[in-house]
Amino acid sequence: MTIENISVNKSFGGWQKQYSHQSKTLNCAMRFAIYLPPQISNGEKVPVLYWLSGLTCTDENFMQKAGAQRIAAELGIAIVAPDTSPRGEGVANDEGYDLGMGAGFYVNATQAPWNRHYQMYDYVVNELPAIIEASFPVSNERAISGHSMGGHGALTIAMLNPERYSSMSAFSPICNPVKAPWGKKAFTAYLGKDKATWRNHDASELMRKASQFIPAKVDQGGADDFLAEQLKPEALEAAAKVNGYPLELAIHDGYDHSYYFISSFIEEHLRFHAQHLNK
Amino acid sequence: MTIENISVNKSFGGWQKQYSHQSKTLNCAMRFAIYLPPQISNGEKVPVLYWLSGLTCTDENFMQKAGAQRIAAELGIAIVAPDTSPRGEGVANDEGYDLGMGAGFYVNATQAPWNRHYQMYDYVVNELPAIIEASFPVSNERAISGHSMGGHGALTIAMLNPERYSSMSAFSPICNPVKAPWGKKAFTAYLGKDKATWRNHDASELMRKASQFIPAKVDQGGADDFLAEQLKPEALEAAAKVNGYPLELAIHDGYDHSYYFISSFIEEHLRFHAQHLNK
Repeated sequence: MTIENISVNKSFGGWQKQYSHQSKTLNCAMRFAIYLPPQISNGEKVPVLYWLSGLTCTDENFMQKAGAQRIAAELGIAIVAPDTSPRGEGVANDEGYDLGMGAGFYVNATQAPWNRHYQMYDYVVNELPAIIEASFPVSNERAISGHSMGGHGALTIAMLNPERYSSMSAFSPICNPVKAPWGKKAFTAYLGKDKATWRNHDASELMRKASQFIPAKVDQGGADDFLAEQLKPEALEAAAKVNGYPLELAIHDGYDHSYYFISSFIEEHLRFHAQHLNK
Repeated sequence: MTIENISVNKSFGGWQKQYSHQSKTLNCAMRFAIYLPPQISNGEKVPVLYWLSGLTCTDENFMQKAGAQRIAAELGIAIVAPDTSPRGEGVANDEGYDLGMGAGFYVNATQAPWNRHYQMYDYVVNELPAIIEASFPVSNERAISGHSMGGHGALTIAMLNPERYSSMSAFSPICNPVKAPWGKKAFTAYLGKDKATWRNHDASELMRKASQFIPAKVDQGGADDFLAEQLKPEALEAAAKVNGYPLELAIHDGYDHSYYFISSFIEEHLRFHAQHLNK
């Protein structure tokens, strides 16, 4: 379990770092970013917020654009951002931005040629936290969040593993991928044509049937171009209502799908997670 | 004076926008970014902070990475970020990242082939503010800041035009370009070999001789790779001391030349400018 440091930048009294490592799960070299808050200097073990990014992103977008370090430094929370897919020579790819590299969709592919590398679910749930908890001064308290495809990833991974996360949140998540073009394309490629397997990775389906609840917060821009066709927060809201799931969902007038939306509300998400991480 | 809107993103209750326009000064199409804070909805005319970026940057880097909108929204300050040089087909360029496109150095070139387009000093001092003040609900109160090459630009432009700016600040500025490789290369190309013309665009030279003072704040990372050879804050500090110039200069241990440094301290800069803009 060797990890190699690529970069370090001091940020708000803490450290923004990038690492690469050979992933056994994904069968390729992977990169991740981690923000370590100043509290670790006191020998404190800090909890971790996992951030899952959206289509076309890498481990860098959130760390450069969201402005989360300021609040993480105040609250004493580490943030870990993995890449959004396996990458490299020999890794299957597609011409579209919404399949293949940059578009792993946080599932374990069962279909060729994707199944050799595209195991992002196992990577995010198991391999990456094991590496993080063995390599950095962090506790095993975890929260999870993400944007768009990564919002889908955060909600589905948390609901499939409620014992592993104190809370979950998302910006502009793909709430009902089994009914959205992005989800249908990716799930067909990665999981095959049997829609029963798709439903196990659909946040609205999982929320309707969940028996163990964790606190959930979702924010969505009202001027998001992808809102009606791809994101469908109304499906998530309906599922929460049916099942009594503790979901705080808000639509924000005029905000779009960009990091300008995320940066405007990231502070609320970090404070929400801090509350449930007992920070 | 026609400007064309390229994009709008809601951000912290205000509006992040990009525009293009045909610059008479630069003799080419130019792009700029503007953040308009929510206070303009009340019919308020807000002051403007001009931000000048560093080598290789465009109008976008600061707006995406510095996290300034949160504080600008609170304080009611607009921020304007021009591009760092003229651009386009027919605009002279160089293979290096430190000369030509992305490296205008905020001077008026007098030497061929640069003099046809590279007139960034006049653009920032005159043409751009005239456009901004005619097109947006802003007052004619101005402050100016920047990073690296843009820090050099902010300090020199403010000291050459102290009646136009309430305050000036910089992150990691090139404080003494007449003695730094970046400055020598750019000034030789744009201004020619006569070093008397160079000194008129050297922040340390200007600060030593200034007769009209405006409040100045400079922050520098102590782990900045460019510190000793290119940036030379000690020259600026010495000049301020000799002349009694009101300069607040701080070196921050462990911080580097990146936007992770800028984002960590941008709040202090905005509050500094707000104080002198009577906000």
